[in-house]
Amino acid sequence: MEKSRAQLSVEEQLETIKQGTVAILPLEELAEKLERSRKTGIPLQVKLGVDPTAPDVHLGTAVVLRKLRQFQDLGHQAVLIIGDFTALVGDPSGQSKTRPQLSPEEIEHNAETYFTQVRKILDMDHARVVRNSAWFRKFTFEDVIHLAARMTLARTIERDDFDQRLKSNTPIALHELLYPLMQGYDSVEVKADVEVGGQDQTFNLLAAREIQRDLGQEPQVALTMPLLVGTDGTLKMSKSYGNYIGIAEPPEEIFGKVMSVPDELLASYFEMCTCVPAEQARELLAPGKNPRDAK
Amino acid sequence: MEKSRAQLSVEEQLETIKQGTVAILPLEELAEKLERSRKTGIPLQVKLGVDPTAPDVHLGTAVVLRKLRQFQDLGHQAVLIIGDFTALVGDPSGQSKTRPQLSPEEIEHNAETYFTQVRKILDMDHARVVRNSAWFRKFTFEDVIHLAARMTLARTIERDDFDQRLKSNTPIALHELLYPLMQGYDSVEVKADVEVGGQDQTFNLLAAREIQRDLGQEPQVALTMPLLVGTDGTLKMSKSYGNYIGIAEPPEEIFGKVMSVPDELLASYFEMCTCVPAEQARELLAPGKNPRDAK
Repeated sequence: MEKSRAQLSVEEQLETIKQGTVAILPLEELAEKLERSRKTGIPLQVKLGVDPTAPDVHLGTAVVLRKLRQFQDLGHQAVLIIGDFTALVGDPSGQSKTRPQLSPEEIEHNAETYFTQVRKILDMDHARVVRNSAWFRKFTFEDVIHLAARMTLARTIERDDFDQRLKSNTPIALHELLYPLMQGYDSVEVKADVEVGGQDQTFNLLAAREIQRDLGQEPQVALTMPLLVGTDGTLKMSKSYGNYIGIAEPPEEIFGKVMSVPDELLASYFEMCTCVPAEQARELLAPGKNPRDAK
Repeated sequence: MEKSRAQLSVEEQLETIKQGTVAILPLEELAEKLERSRKTGIPLQVKLGVDPTAPDVHLGTAVVLRKLRQFQDLGHQAVLIIGDFTALVGDPSGQSKTRPQLSPEEIEHNAETYFTQVRKILDMDHARVVRNSAWFRKFTFEDVIHLAARMTLARTIERDDFDQRLKSNTPIALHELLYPLMQGYDSVEVKADVEVGGQDQTFNLLAAREIQRDLGQEPQVALTMPLLVGTDGTLKMSKSYGNYIGIAEPPEEIFGKVMSVPDELLASYFEMCTCVPAEQARELLAPGKNPRDAK
């Protein structure tokens, strides 16, 4: 069995946390935060922002949720931010065109469905769940101006996705530039020590550090996870692309979708979505074996 | 004597309005609006936005104010917008760096001083004076998002000043991108038929047309006036550059500043700031005459 939480050293915690990550920026700061947490007994606030643009939690999101669950198992505080207000804007990360703005009713429905599904992975009895409308509904235009003054255009458009859209003349609406600011301000409100997210969230997670620092807060550590490629075998799994496997879909639906995953993706699916030990996975995927059996 | 207002034909009005302008965009729409106004008896709403960033109205602003006075004399409605809210952002037009944000107290003081001085040029008894805090103070973050969604980044950074700042790596803070949107929304609120402004306002005046059209309003005509070069002989006269002659300064101060204006600018000062007939001005500035006497 696992050691009880309090017994785990910083090194042991780091070993678990590092598993399967793309980057921890900066790693030294995470070590310092873990060290302080261990001394004071105050758990780290580990944030995950969720954009409720479609009702299903899919296997790609689950990769990040499982990382958050690991932090919970290590005794830290999971902070789940339902981006109900942010969904009015729509995260432009990795998108090649402007997303449609959702109605408040659609957002509310999606947020509730999402919330139910997340229970399958997170220990919801010990998670802090907040909706960012709690603070953004109170924002005045003046507050928006002061927040927007904290980020430069150059820094914003150095993002790959914005840069590519500018170069290809795909319109970027001005409200999309506000997204990283809003996500960053969420971190200020919940005093995040760590934020977990997909690799495509790297810019937003790092932008939050600047906003926290500007507002006199110790910046969060950005922890990114790899993106699961969707059932189409090309694009990242995403609600926007319709190439996802939902964790709350009926078993026969999941079975059908898993069978449709291109065989060459099986190794990454095993690593990112299952607890199957690496050795067993390699064996199942060995040359000569039928990929259908592995699925 | 002048004909009474109602007698003036559209052609006669256009002749007066065109005097000294840089551009009227588009001229045909102005003719149509004047025609309709003449038929219906409803005066045109002619907007001037004022950014109260410093207490003095200078000769450069006076050029535009005098154009607005002409519209009043032709029977139209002057709408003076004190940009008390916008001044929180600071118009980036023609600026090479981010302006400092003013405190509400500074803005209030400047707005009041400005208001008093404008009476020297405008017929304030018949002018409509509004402060844009009247609507922007009521804006929620959601309202800001919906407004920002109406403009693209590409369209915004095609402005010369933004473009130059991006190329020279001079930071543009994100809140500065909101300025043209705010100025444009002012036009929606007052249902502007025409907006007058300096040549450096061309982008903002045209951006307002798109926002009005988006919100189902007939777009305004953009009327721009030349920029008066300041007492330094190089930069446009501007409160930000400190190279201005204030219309409410003591006579001896104005005298001193006028005497310091480089001689080669005298012709443009005559044309833009005085009622001296062109012929008399040419005579005063003829070769062999002492420029000091002309001043």
